[in-house]
Order: sequence, then structure tokens, then C-alpha cells
Amino acid sequence: MTVSIDRTDPEGSIARAARLCSNWDRWGAADVLGTLNHLTPETRRAAATLIQRGVSFSLSQSFDMNGPQKGWRRRTNPVHTMLDTGTDAAAGNQGFPHGIGGADDVIAMPLQCSTQWDGLGHIFDHGRAYNGRDAAKTVTSDGDLVTGIEHMAPHVAGRGVLLDVGAVIGENGELPDGFAVTTDHLLTTAAAHGVTVGRGDIVTVRTGQLTRVRREGWGEYAGGAAPGLSFTTAQWLRDSEIAAIATDTWGFEVRPNEFDDAFQPLHQVAIPHIGLLIGEMWDLDALAADCAADGRYEFWLTAAPLPITGAVGSPVNPVAVK
Amino acid sequence: MTVSIDRTDPEGSIARAARLCSNWDRWGAADVLGTLNHLTPETRRAAATLIQRGVSFSLSQSFDMNGPQKGWRRRTNPVHTMLDTGTDAAAGNQGFPHGIGGADDVIAMPLQCSTQWDGLGHIFDHGRAYNGRDAAKTVTSDGDLVTGIEHMAPHVAGRGVLLDVGAVIGENGELPDGFAVTTDHLLTTAAAHGVTVGRGDIVTVRTGQLTRVRREGWGEYAGGAAPGLSFTTAQWLRDSEIAAIATDTWGFEVRPNEFDDAFQPLHQVAIPHIGLLIGEMWDLDALAADCAADGRYEFWLTAAPLPITGAVGSPVNPVAVK
Amino acid sequence: MTVSIDRTDPEGSIARAARLCSNWDRWGAADVLGTLNHLTPETRRAAATLIQRGVSFSLSQSFDMNGPQKGWRRRTNPVHTMLDTGTDAAAGNQGFPHGIGGADDVIAMPLQCSTQWDGLGHIFDHGRAYNGRDAAKTVTSDGDLVTGIEHMAPHVAGRGVLLDVGAVIGENGELPDGFAVTTDHLLTTAAAHGVTVGRGDIVTVRTGQLTRVRREGWGEYAGGAAPGLSFTTAQWLRDSEIAAIATDTWGFEVRPNEFDDAFQPLHQVAIPHIGLLIGEMWDLDALAADCAADGRYEFWLTAAPLPITGAVGSPVNPVAVK
Amino acid sequence: MTVSIDRTDPEGSIARAARLCSNWDRWGAADVLGTLNHLTPETRRAAATLIQRGVSFSLSQSFDMNGPQKGWRRRTNPVHTMLDTGTDAAAGNQGFPHGIGGADDVIAMPLQCSTQWDGLGHIFDHGRAYNGRDAAKTVTSDGDLVTGIEHMAPHVAGRGVLLDVGAVIGENGELPDGFAVTTDHLLTTAAAHGVTVGRGDIVTVRTGQLTRVRREGWGEYAGGAAPGLSFTTAQWLRDSEIAAIATDTWGFEVRPNEFDDAFQPLHQVAIPHIGLLIGEMWDLDALAADCAADGRYEFWLTAAPLPITGAVGSPVNPVAVK
Repeated sequence: MTVSIDRTDPEGSIARAARLCSNWDRWGAADVLGTLNHLTPETRRAAATLIQRGVSFSLSQSFDMNGPQKGWRRRTNPVHTMLDTGTDAAAGNQGFPHGIGGADDVIAMPLQCSTQWDGLGHIFDHGRAYNGRDAAKTVTSDGDLVTGIEHMAPHVAGRGVLLDVGAVIGENGELPDGFAVTTDHLLTTAAAHGVTVGRGDIVTVRTGQLTRVRREGWGEYAGGAAPGLSFTTAQWLRDSEIAAIATDTWGFEVRPNEFDDAFQPLHQVAIPHIGLLIGEMWDLDALAADCAADGRYEFWLTAAPLPITGAVGSPVNPVAVK
Repeated sequence: MTVSIDRTDPEGSIARAARLCSNWDRWGAADVLGTLNHLTPETRRAAATLIQRGVSFSLSQSFDMNGPQKGWRRRTNPVHTMLDTGTDAAAGNQGFPHGIGGADDVIAMPLQCSTQWDGLGHIFDHGRAYNGRDAAKTVTSDGDLVTGIEHMAPHVAGRGVLLDVGAVIGENGELPDGFAVTTDHLLTTAAAHGVTVGRGDIVTVRTGQLTRVRREGWGEYAGGAAPGLSFTTAQWLRDSEIAAIATDTWGFEVRPNEFDDAFQPLHQVAIPHIGLLIGEMWDLDALAADCAADGRYEFWLTAAPLPITGAVGSPVNPVAVK
Repeated sequence: MTVSIDRTDPEGSIARAARLCSNWDRWGAADVLGTLNHLTPETRRAAATLIQRGVSFSLSQSFDMNGPQKGWRRRTNPVHTMLDTGTDAAAGNQGFPHGIGGADDVIAMPLQCSTQWDGLGHIFDHGRAYNGRDAAKTVTSDGDLVTGIEHMAPHVAGRGVLLDVGAVIGENGELPDGFAVTTDHLLTTAAAHGVTVGRGDIVTVRTGQLTRVRREGWGEYAGGAAPGLSFTTAQWLRDSEIAAIATDTWGFEVRPNEFDDAFQPLHQVAIPHIGLLIGEMWDLDALAADCAADGRYEFWLTAAPLPITGAVGSPVNPVAVK
Repeated sequence: MTVSIDRTDPEGSIARAARLCSNWDRWGAADVLGTLNHLTPETRRAAATLIQRGVSFSLSQSFDMNGPQKGWRRRTNPVHTMLDTGTDAAAGNQGFPHGIGGADDVIAMPLQCSTQWDGLGHIFDHGRAYNGRDAAKTVTSDGDLVTGIEHMAPHVAGRGVLLDVGAVIGENGELPDGFAVTTDHLLTTAAAHGVTVGRGDIVTVRTGQLTRVRREGWGEYAGGAAPGLSFTTAQWLRDSEIAAIATDTWGFEVRPNEFDDAFQPLHQVAIPHIGLLIGEMWDLDALAADCAADGRYEFWLTAAPLPITGAVGSPVNPVAVK
């Protein structure tokens, strides 16, 4: 039995996929890490050898007002304001002694406004959170009381793999909007790169959509049509035993979704059932160029969320080192 | 000639130290990285061998309302609020199809409210920013237009060293408030640990104050008396060619400061003149315990700031891997 | 039967008071205004004659970081930051033509951080909101979908009355913390002022606590011991047919509350059952001094909440004109 | 000599208008109120008779995410989030005793995101603020240290007048975008309404643009083409001795502005030189309909800004009573 799509029955399709892919109780009733359990000291140790040239890459988009958010779910772009400035310091407005001056700043932002992780408390299936917990008691107005993203803070460092599906499967390095990336596409891409994806890996999937919107304008990047993972990859997402996966798109999975009437059905399987850590809006372009140049698509990757107590997501600056 | 303290003349003492320690123009007039220039692919490559057991540690305090901020400079603790919750999802309030529910969240916080980096635009000396730039034109209400912390995003990964001065010099693992950590203390500690600090290192200095306030309450952690680096360490901070340094205290340097009337004089030398990346409010306790246990005080450290465009500071979750 | 207090049985006492004082269905099942229904064009018209000298008073405390909030329920003092400043304009940093310069600003604040109204969606009784509505469907993460404070926006203008209980009943103009103001105290005060409280009035009650904390420091103003209305006033709050009532304290009712173990029991009757608009943290001192001087304790009062869609409270600058 | 426009010389035209219209020192060097000085107890007293039917109107747009802001100057629409909800109360998540439940909320917003006042510190002319003050020392990162909007808190209540220029001069009640409203248009409208504008009045000018964007979508309401006051009205704005003026548009004055290359030139005269309190984004439609129905275009108006210390603008819910 495999994960399949009945376009007219998202609810049934999701239920079947959930049964096939569930990791509930795999790591005990108290587990708060999900697939990060696959990322062990052993996998980390093995990945250390991937640091060879010592070059490093940030996989983060900018955090500023020039972002894609347009208000959906009250998400705005980050509002960064200054509490003190150099202009004030130079004008003698600060009242500090011996010529010292300072600048200080503040930010207000949705935790999923730019490059981010989705926490385990981000998505529910029929009122159930990861590991079968009651969503109503798990994520309240006080935040995620059980699986807050702070629990992941020390763990997200290990082997990273880039699957540049845009380059291997797309044209001119880009998949078109609406293109569903299947498990076959992922495996074909890995084979083309000469890389194997395995247990504990943090997989990054480049579709090229970010490259395109950079060139053409944000448009509907935040929620509109996009290339992304097919619902059918759920099985591989679970069976590959990867620790985490991230894309260069707003919503990880293909949009429009592969059902007649649906909203992010793969999320509904991947987060509450698989317990998978999903990253979105990552900028993989500089890394992809380097991988194409040296032919190595694996690297040391650290992508530690901020330990915001009870958060269901976190901005992140993932750093890859080769 | 060495950096010295005339308690009655902070301005003159700072000016002398600035001349002795200046890195202006060392990496060219356009440089935006300061001492991060010491952190090269070579130093990174060498540090990869430090990943041996594969264990990882977060060096970040929590980001929540139970923090130390009390309003100085309009700094509050982080305010994390939910845009959607599991409680709402379970109550059927969300209107999504096929049983999917979601939680989403927002944060408002000073960039230096918890574990953080000070950017190069954070401190000025007589209206001059790092590399001699005019502070009035460098850090405006639009943020740091030149040395914004986004420039550091890919770089802060390399060799980390822990100097547990609290354990080596203090009593019961803690230095008292007001204790000035000198270069001798740092070198003695390094020697006790069997570790050498060198070019490109990211140095973490544990005083034990965080351990104390955890036990006794925040009190005046945010700006009150604290152990910290002596003004006289400026020379070593420059000559050691370290890339960055962080402490477990609010303000990095000893407080009260070592002049009759002063405010953070070491900052005034270290940031605009040395171009040094300074971290504050790091939580080094778990790492210190591990280092004491295995006797190894060096590790792979990734501490990438969020690329908030124009920011003069950034929250950070530093991750050490041994 | 009257509202009474069984110190050991807050739940029973509240249930009895709720039955005695309920306004559910009084103004129809669709009502969103509660006691503001008492404030009619007729009462407004009659109040116009109270504008006699033309002098006006703000009854608002300041909105800034020097406020009483200390973090309870994630409430902070308002954080006001600048997007642009005069310093930047004068330094030529703004890039506008013909010498124009500008300043602009932003605020982040709890809606109940300073002088405020409690909306009808602020308090529930056993999962029931005003008019018997299901709290779970009325106030969700999307805000108050039914009784949001925006509905009150045009209405809160009419006759205001000051009851300076601190002056009449207290010593040196102040009631001590923990002093429960009863209906007798209110009526005695009104009689001493030569004023009658009636239908549609917006009543302001000065205890003098704000005067005290201004002199002595905020201390536990936000939630600690305070003078305030006795639970037993519930009957009068309903039967007097006032439109709204506000105090100079954080929490309107006396604290500690008048039960062995309770939290704001009068709120639980007044808001969901009476549908009463309650104001808190008003600054009545300047107005009180003027009333004492001219002997007139009634005035025209406008206290319009900001129409923040779905809000359960609102900052307000009440303006009294005599 | 009168205010005139040389399309190729905004700077010269502004300088001439500033000389003609200056109120600097009119109310003393320490003045912080500008034209609010025209709004005296006498004018207030006279206006009380305008409350005749007792009906009240809010002139405020909503404060929510469905607003016009698109990011200019980091201005967003208001982000309103819940700290606690009825859903949580009903689910038993709150831990309060005796069945009480609560909802609480927070807002983050630019002070000029919706219906607002521009404070005297909002606009400068060649580095000069109102009354000739040095902008660099008046409005710093700490806010407006001299003319903060808190000073206006008790004053803005008095006679309001509606000039429905859209109805009198426009077609179908609306002026087209780019239409410059001159003094003649204002006086013609007043005459058509049978009303006289005089000293101390708070004048509201309806162009109909808000009606249009409500019908057609926000489009470029926030900064695009709009009807509004002509630069040439500066003289009348000063000589009429009005206390304040507000429009239903984003920017008060006509856009595009009446010079070949300019940005809000009338602001540059009206705020720093005349010291005029300017309101923007007011919703005058319901009031206008009522005025058309009863033929009375004058009313009691209270439009008190929130006393946000040091603010250069404030959200406001103006309430008109007839």
C-alpha cells in the first residue's frame, strides 16, 4: 500500500497517508522532537568530514520590509525599528559620558515571515497534534506548551544535502509553478548529484521559484501557485528517516494542492503524523551554485531555531559549511 | 605601551586604548566584517576535527517573558503571541478544509533582549563607527546602512573555545559581581583547560553570573553589577586575533566599570576600533559541564545572526558541537 | 434578595449575583452594546448643558515605558519607537526634496496597558460571554468576532459624573489599599457632591490610589492590593442603569478580593452578566481638583475606544468638558 | 502678496508661503500647541449648543489588517493579536478560579496607519520644527521631546464643521484623484452648507475618495493620486484661525502635488510654520449623510489623541455629536 491521491477525497487520502506514515509513539509518548530523533551523535560525527574547504553559506533570505508577506493570517514582513541611532549619537542627543554613543533596535515579526522552521505545533489533524496529543491542550494562547520549538534548539546540526530539482528536472534551473515534485524526482536528482539521502539528514530542496520571484517580483510567492513536494512523497519523507527538510518556497508542498479542494494536505500528514521538521523560504541559490561548481551536494549544516518558548515556528539563518 | 586605566580620565584612557588597538583600514575602507576577517576557510577547516562525539549544545537562553529586561532603553522581554492556536483548531474555529488545523505566531522583541550578538553598528566613539565611518550617516533611523548584521550571516561558524573563568578563578564556579577579568585571568584559565586561543576563534567566557541569577533571581542582571572583562583586556582582544567573544553576562565587561564615571568603556574600544563581534547573555552552563567532564574546551561553534537588514544586533542560538 | 458574599464560596456567590444582575436578552439576542444601551440620544442631549465654562480635561495616564506593567499576562508598558526622526531630517539622511523632513513612529502595546476600556469580550463566566454567548465561538484567536470594541466606537459620549470617594470617605483624599467601596460609600459620596447618578451616566470613581503610587512609586499597582469596588456593588451597578464606570486603579474592584480564594469576581458578574463597560487606570486627579474647586461633579465626557476590529479592550483618552 | 505656486520651484514657493503664514512666536517661544491655541474655553462653550439631537458618530476607519498600508516607510496595517481567548477559557486552559475566564490582547501598529492626527513633530522645514526649533534636538530616537502629542491630549474638543466638498463640487459626491481643493472650493462649500468656518474650529473636509476606495478597493490610497487641499490654501489655513483640519484621504493635500518634483509641500508649510493640527484618513461618510439629511454641518467634536509620550502622531477615534 502506498500514499495515493483521490482528488475528490482529500480527507480520506490524508487519513490513509497518515496511517501509512505515522510515527506516533515511535519515540515514546513524551517525545517532543519527532524526526529530529534520527539526527544522532553518530550521524553528526559522520557528517564532520564534510567540512573540507571551510567555506560557509547562509541559506537565509533577508528579514526586512522588502519581503513577500501581504497580510494573510495577519502575517506582515518584519518591522525593524531603531531605539537609538548613530545620527543621534553624533548629534549629542544620548547623554552618555566620554564620547560613547550607541544604537539599539527592536523587531516585530511573524515567526514565519521569512526563512523559517515550522515547529511540531504548527499543524494539526482533526484536533490532534504530533504524537496524538490533544491540540486544544497542546497549543493554547500561551503557545505550544509541549512541543515548543525551544526543544529543538540544540539539535539541528548535522549532515545537509541539497537536491537541486530545479536544475536537474526543470528548465533553466527552475520548476514551473504548480509542478509536483515526486519521490522519483527527488531520487533522480540525488542520483544526478551523486549523493545518497539517508537517516538523520537535513534535506534542502531547490525548486528555483525563489530565483524566479527575485527576478520577476514577489507576486503571489506567499501562498500562490508554486512548485513543491507532491502529497505522494509522504511515504518517502517518513521511510527515508530524514531529520528535516526545507524548500525555497513559501509552502513546501506544491500549490495548487493536488486535490480539488484542499489546503496544504501534505503538511497535515508530515507535521502531526510523521513529526517532520519542515523549513520554508530558504535561499538555496548561492549554495546550489557552489555545489554545481564543485560537484559536492552534501555539507555540514547548522540551522538552529531561536529557543522562543512555546513557539510553533522560528526564523532561522541556516549555515552550510563545505 | 599598553592599555591602562586612569580612573579619573575615561576619555583619555579610551583614546589611548583606541590608538593602540585600532583595526581601522586593516581590511580596507569598505570592510564590514571587522574581526570576522580572522575567521577564514582555513580556520574553519582546521576546526572541523573538533567534532568528535557528535554531541551538540545550545548556548542560548530562553526567549520569553521570564527574562531579565526591566525597561532600560525601552528594552522589554520578548512578547510572543499566537495568531492561531490548537485550541481554536480543535474548536472548529478556523475554517480550513479536511480537518487541517494550524497555529501561527508573532514576536515583538528588542534585538538585544536575550542571547545576542552586538553588531558593528551598536557602539560609536565620538560620532565614529567602525572603520572611522561617520556614525550619523552609518546608522540612521533606517538602520545600519553599511555594517548591518546581515553581512555577518554566512560567517559565524568555526572553532569555539570555552574559558570557564568562573570555574578556574572563582569560588564554587562563580566570579563575584564587580570582578574584572584580566588578560592574565583569561590566559590562566586557558592554560588550566589545556587549550590555546588563537586566530579566528570564537571565544566564550563563562563568569558564572548567569548560574547565580538563575538560582537567586534576575535582580539587576540587566545592567547592574556583574563580573566581566577588564578594560585592560582590549589589547589582548585585538592582538589575539580572535574573531568574536561572548560572555554569560548582560554587558560583556565588568560592572561597575573601572572608571569613576563611565559607561561601557571597553565597548567603546572593542566595537568601533577593534571591530570585534561581541556576544552577550549566552548560556554556557551545559557546555561548561560537558567540557569539565571530558576535559576538552574547544568545539565546533555555529552562531549565525539572523540577517535582519540593517540591524545593529541579533538574537542568536549558538550551537556548539563536540 | 441582594448580592452577598460567602467568603468560602466565590463560585456560589457569583452565581447568585449573576442571576440577580443579569441583563441577558434585555436588549435582544443580537445586542453587542450592553449597558451602553442606557446611553441614548436623550441622555446625551440633556448632558450638553453641562458644558458651561468650556474647560477640558484629559483623564488619561501617559502611554510610555514609565508605566506600571511588569509582565503579568505578557502585558508590557507601551514600546514607542521612531521610524524617522528630526535628527535624521536635519542630518540630511531622508532623501526628500525641497527641504522637507519628517518623523514617523510605531507602537507595540497591550490594549490594557494604561488608561483603557474593558470590552464585553474581556471576561467570561464558565465559558459564557455577554448575553449568554459561547465564549469559545465569540472570542477566538481572530479576536472578538461578535462584541469587538469597534461596536462601541460612536457611543461613548454623554454625561460624566465623578465620585471622589477618596476625598469624601478616605483620609487625605485617599482610600487605603484593600478598602472595599460599597454602594453606601458611592451614594454617600454622591450626596456629598450634590450630584445624582442615573441612567446612561458614565461614572468615574476616584479612590486616590493613583495619587499615592505617583508619590510613592508604582509598586504593585498592576495587580496588587488596591482600593476598589466591593463585590456587593453589583446590584447597584445594574439597577442604577449607568452606561459605564471607570476607576483610577488597575483592576476596578477591591484587591485582595473579598473571598478567600478568588480572582476578580465582580468582573465575572459585571462584564458577562450586566454587560457593563468598565474603565481602568483612569487619571481623575486634575478633574477632581477642578470639581472640588467649582463644586460641580458632572460634565460632558467623551471616551471613545479606538475601533480596533475584534479587540476586547482599548486604550482611551477620555476628555471631560465642564 | 498671496501664496502662489511656481511649479518648477517648490523650494522657493514653500519659502514664500512659510513667510506669509508663519505662526512662529505667536504664542510664545515655549508653545507646544500651535493652532490648538485658537480652541479656547470660549469657543468650546459656544459649541455646546450644537448638541441638539444627541446623536453621535464615529469618524474613524477600522484598525485592522484590511487597511491600506503597503509598507511605505515601514508602515503596516495594525497587527492585533490575542494573549488569551474565549476559546481557551471555555477549554479550561486558563487556570483561573471559580469559572472566570478572560481574553486579552496586544497591538503593534504605526501611529499613522489609520485614522490619525499628525503631531507638530511630524514634519520639518530645512531642519526646523514648529516654532523654529532645531529638529535635530526636538525629535530624536527618544521621540518628540518638546511637542509630543501628549500635550494635545486635553484640548481637542470643540466645534466641528464638515465641508463636504465631494458633494458640493464633485460628481456623485466624489472629487476625482488629483483634484486640488482651493480656498474658493472650501468657501463655496461652506456657503452651500450654510455654515461659516471660524476661529477654533475643527474642520473636516470630505473629498469622497474614501467612499470610492471602499467601493473599488484600496488601490493606491496610501500615497497614490488623491484629491486634497491645494498648496494655495496655506494662507486660509492660517488666516481662518481654525484649530485643526482633517480629510478622508491618506495625505491631506492633493496628490500628485502641484509642483513638478515635490513631496507634500503643504505639509511643510502647515505643520512647522502654521503649527496646524492635521488629521488624515478620517471616515466622514456617515456624518456627511446625516448632515445632508438635517442640513446642519456643524457639531460638537471630540478627537483626543492618545497621550503617547513623545509621539509625532496618534490614532484617534473622533466622535461627533449633533
